[in-house]
Amino acid sequence: MDHTAHDVLGIGNAIVDVLAHVEEDFLVRHDLVKGAMRLIDEVEAEHLYEALGPTMEQSGGSAANTIAALASFGCKAAFIGKVKDDQLGEVFAHDITATGAHFDTPKAADGPSTARCLVLVTPDGERTMNTWLGAAQNLGPEDIDEALVKASGIVYLEGYLFDPPAAKKAFHKAAAVAREAGRKVALTLSDSFCVDRHREDFLHLIRNSVDILFANEAEIKSLYQASTFNDAMHAVRQDCPLAVLTRSAAGSVIALPDDVHVVEAAPVKKVVDATGAGDLFAAGFLAGHARGLELPDAARLGALAAAEIIQQMGARAIRPFREVARENGYHHF
Amino acid sequence: MDHTAHDVLGIGNAIVDVLAHVEEDFLVRHDLVKGAMRLIDEVEAEHLYEALGPTMEQSGGSAANTIAALASFGCKAAFIGKVKDDQLGEVFAHDITATGAHFDTPKAADGPSTARCLVLVTPDGERTMNTWLGAAQNLGPEDIDEALVKASGIVYLEGYLFDPPAAKKAFHKAAAVAREAGRKVALTLSDSFCVDRHREDFLHLIRNSVDILFANEAEIKSLYQASTFNDAMHAVRQDCPLAVLTRSAAGSVIALPDDVHVVEAAPVKKVVDATGAGDLFAAGFLAGHARGLELPDAARLGALAAAEIIQQMGARAIRPFREVARENGYHHF
Repeated sequence: MDHTAHDVLGIGNAIVDVLAHVEEDFLVRHDLVKGAMRLIDEVEAEHLYEALGPTMEQSGGSAANTIAALASFGCKAAFIGKVKDDQLGEVFAHDITATGAHFDTPKAADGPSTARCLVLVTPDGERTMNTWLGAAQNLGPEDIDEALVKASGIVYLEGYLFDPPAAKKAFHKAAAVAREAGRKVALTLSDSFCVDRHREDFLHLIRNSVDILFANEAEIKSLYQASTFNDAMHAVRQDCPLAVLTRSAAGSVIALPDDVHVVEAAPVKKVVDATGAGDLFAAGFLAGHARGLELPDAARLGALAAAEIIQQMGARAIRPFREVARENGYHHF
Repeated sequence: MDHTAHDVLGIGNAIVDVLAHVEEDFLVRHDLVKGAMRLIDEVEAEHLYEALGPTMEQSGGSAANTIAALASFGCKAAFIGKVKDDQLGEVFAHDITATGAHFDTPKAADGPSTARCLVLVTPDGERTMNTWLGAAQNLGPEDIDEALVKASGIVYLEGYLFDPPAAKKAFHKAAAVAREAGRKVALTLSDSFCVDRHREDFLHLIRNSVDILFANEAEIKSLYQASTFNDAMHAVRQDCPLAVLTRSAAGSVIALPDDVHVVEAAPVKKVVDATGAGDLFAAGFLAGHARGLELPDAARLGALAAAEIIQQMGARAIRPFREVARENGYHHF
């Protein structure tokens, strides 16, 4: 890639996570599908919040988590997403810029509050997410700074943006501007239910405009309505020049039209909270890619970042990722 | 104690903690005294926040931490403190009531925002606190619900309330109502610098109105301007019927006019974040006391609660304390 001001520009829902521990029966009582993300309205968000025990708050959002981690690796990263000018919006803006990322999307002066995701963490470390999109759903094409897109080597888009209509328009605008400027477009599929809601749109986009696709096993199988991972992997090799497919403890697979690499997961002592695992894998991979690593080495760095984040609460790292990288022999950081 | 609706009523500053990791040199650059709490204004709070890396937010406040933990032990607990009707105020109210504690102090409709404490955690796990009191400083005598005070076996007051003038009046009103009703008054000295600011007032109060005093080594030495712990301990035995003195890894000492008990600290693998250690020791002690344990056993329960909290980030426990108690053979919980 030629010289650009930012290695990666992420565009996604700007969300503050509200993390709580729950027992398995809480999910059953509230009819929640474990491991999934579902959209809820403000009233349901308030009811569910009332039912939760003590919480902690931390900035979140899928692409935002990836961008914060990329900056923490020392990469040049930027983010576009919509918060309101309220206390949680201030928290979101602080946390992403505190990592070193560029973030200047205008905050909404009125309308709904900054988005919140109620993240319910079960004793096995799995997380079940309930998102009220609030101000994030009002991200629109006018928020896509074309100069910023053109100044970024890779534009990284989260599939969740397909849910709010205005954000979907912003998504398509960003992808078009990036391709026009000769930049790469990366997409993460976000969630198998999200894929189910927007399968045809995703397939069209992947076949025409996506250079790097990130998906986990459930998402890629949902995309191709495939019964096995292998079938889905072979399908995506026909459609996309580079697919990075994550499989939790089974590691990851890099699928290219003419080659496949299988990469092991990094060791994990105890899964405390799976929130952000996929986002951080993408961050490690993109950080490695930006530093010119071979694809399997970049995937190993992704696995390290994912392993680091699932051993703590929340999707934002306590320790700078450049330290994690260096400790593991990645001397480019 | 006779039958009361609440075992303990806590009165204190209602604060949301903003926790960040910093290196030692950050404290030096910003002229901060490690381990201490200092009061800052809103402008300084904003500047310091800007200088911090990514944060997490969690409810805090010294007496509030104690009350949340008491409720988590299964005790009947209530709290009085002032937040504003804003997002962080909602977080504070949610978290304390989610533990089962009673909290219905009216939220301020206008004026300063809900209080924030910027808690800087160094690699050794020590915390340095910078508090902007915001709405908490407007707690006043009108917020002291006399019926609630009379319905509580112990009224637990934090020394930090002596800093804002209106809160100090509220403190004295609560202590007077409690004594009038034959309830016990407990006081925690909060911080050695706070003791230094209000030494004479504290001594007067302790000699006349305090049934149970909580202090750490630095605080009790500051109170009596004593050069050794032993001197301070002997001084407090003249002034107070029951003093619970904590000494970090050196355990605790229960000082009575006619007896002294020395209790070991509970084992700790790694100090992650010392925030809340003293507050949680008080919670365990008071929970044991409410359940009728002997004083040294109550202090051991305090040590367990303190050990639990310093092995995680923040001062609010993830796991219910009644589980911690039962696992350690306290079958009253």
